[in-house]
Amino acid sequence: VVTLVNCFEVPAGRENDFLQAFHTVNAYMRAQPGYLGHRLHRAITDDPSFRFVNVVRWSSPADYYKAHDERFRALVSQPAWAAFRSTPALYEVVHEGVASGVPEDVWR
Amino acid sequence: VVTLVNCFEVPAGRENDFLQAFHTVNAYMRAQPGYLGHRLHRAITDDPSFRFVNVVRWSSPADYYKAHDERFRALVSQPAWAAFRSTPALYEVVHEGVASGVPEDVWR
Repeated sequence: VVTLVNCFEVPAGRENDFLQAFHTVNAYMRAQPGYLGHRLHRAITDDPSFRFVNVVRWSSPADYYKAHDERFRALVSQPAWAAFRSTPALYEVVHEGVASGVPEDVWR
Repeated sequence: VVTLVNCFEVPAGRENDFLQAFHTVNAYMRAQPGYLGHRLHRAITDDPSFRFVNVVRWSSPADYYKAHDERFRALVSQPAWAAFRSTPALYEVVHEGVASGVPEDVWR
């Protein structure tokens, strides 16, 4: 399992435009082999560097790269995406912890 | 529950220095009220913008801000941290999905 962390720069007031563009791409990626799950995070603080952060679990790097195919590139080449700079990278978890007394489903 | 996403810029070759500095601060934060759990991610791709990304669950924004006290500021004022730029922000989960047939513990 690998984790994609994708940080999005979205100007204030463009949140709904971003979400609309996101859902189109997300619907496609969720149907690809190796997609396990995603969580889209929205900043609750003012003027964040990254207004949205998407965290996605993939079965393997190979599945992740294979999903970024011609159809995917066509989707993110839509004009709607021009305003939203993204910074994606693949990660492995190298250290984790849970507070004592906290249910183990802290990540659910 | 809120989620801190903290993206760290760490020069190649400085990973161990970063991890040492991280563990000192992490040990302190884990003992604070409202800390629920964390996952430190390390990039598996070359030349990532953010070599490490820490994802932390806190009970509330108030707990998160309270934990960033004088002792915390003293820890991150250590010279070791000067080389590692961080971009932290608080987030809420606004959209999520799990692939069909995938065990629900995809986030564990």
